[in-house]
Amino acid sequence: MTRKIPQSTVRRLSHYLRSLEGFEDEGGTVSSEELAARGQTTAAQVRKDLSHFGSFGKRGLGYRVDELRSRLRHILGIDRPWRVALVGAGRIGRALIEYPDFRARGYECVAIFDSDPDKVGRRLGDQTIRDAATLEEAMEDLQVELVILAVPAEAAHDVAARAVDVGVKGILNFAPIRLNVPPRIPVQDVNLVMELEALSFAISQAEEAG
Amino acid sequence: MTRKIPQSTVRRLSHYLRSLEGFEDEGGTVSSEELAARGQTTAAQVRKDLSHFGSFGKRGLGYRVDELRSRLRHILGIDRPWRVALVGAGRIGRALIEYPDFRARGYECVAIFDSDPDKVGRRLGDQTIRDAATLEEAMEDLQVELVILAVPAEAAHDVAARAVDVGVKGILNFAPIRLNVPPRIPVQDVNLVMELEALSFAISQAEEAG
Repeated sequence: MTRKIPQSTVRRLSHYLRSLEGFEDEGGTVSSEELAARGQTTAAQVRKDLSHFGSFGKRGLGYRVDELRSRLRHILGIDRPWRVALVGAGRIGRALIEYPDFRARGYECVAIFDSDPDKVGRRLGDQTIRDAATLEEAMEDLQVELVILAVPAEAAHDVAARAVDVGVKGILNFAPIRLNVPPRIPVQDVNLVMELEALSFAISQAEEAG
Repeated sequence: MTRKIPQSTVRRLSHYLRSLEGFEDEGGTVSSEELAARGQTTAAQVRKDLSHFGSFGKRGLGYRVDELRSRLRHILGIDRPWRVALVGAGRIGRALIEYPDFRARGYECVAIFDSDPDKVGRRLGDQTIRDAATLEEAMEDLQVELVILAVPAEAAHDVAARAVDVGVKGILNFAPIRLNVPPRIPVQDVNLVMELEALSFAISQAEEAG
């Protein structure tokens, strides 16, 4: 599939999946309208979002809950487990790997790295924090596929390049910079202060519109 | 302004601002091409993003660094301070308010609330954690404008409704639900597991195309 799917569509697919998981009757059906209501969007948007990925449901009959759920899991790439490494054992990374949803979605944290000698060797969850100097060897041994990059900006390029060198497939980047990795490696940037900026932007725009 | 500006545009504005802050020569100029290179986008995209907000720069002369910077700060609503309350003193909220960028962008945490008696009364940064039961009174007294909602899903609707009742202007929502607040109140949802889903989605799509 070469078409570029907008981030907002992907986000809504995640919401639809969460809605579907709330349905008790797995063998039942759900309409675009019901999915739209729970996802705070429109039925037309639901149909458009799903249409990117082939045909779903039958006009007038809705979607089968169990079928749509498993197709969304496939589309989102979470019908399989992912081997994840956390680099940077600070608050944000720890918050993420301890989310109940993290494990429930099939993300398994197989290694945690830090460069702080005070942290290396400590336990975090079911892992012992490893020295970031051993990153390449450990990531190869453990067949890490995804990296959660939660290190300061000045260390991020180096860690990302080393992770890519040993074959990781994608990076969730909390460092406040644009990583310079080959285009074949997807990078998802998360910057919490930018999320706040989006909020103050929305408020300011509304105030100017009066 | 009633046009809806895409989230991806707002995100890029934040990136352009960060690029501009890296320029030493504040009185100098910068071209769309230079901004594009740093933001990993195209010059045409830079011009399009800025065109939503009036005219900037002169064709062939580029933008004045200091002028564009101050206009971006105005557009993003960060040319003024924001009074912020954190509800839920867990890892994620603490990570956010301790980001160096948080204060640097004018966000000031004026109150922290939690409902856990073991946390209430403890110090966090320069704040003492308050009992969430006192939320309305304290938010009014302190003229809180933004709420960082970092409570479990089951508490989120209640806290959001109470915050809206006492006049907050926007919510950064970490709870994994869609908040049901009046449309005039902007809500920015952050769900870190969904960010991972966007990453596994991108990898899966690339593998299927491959």
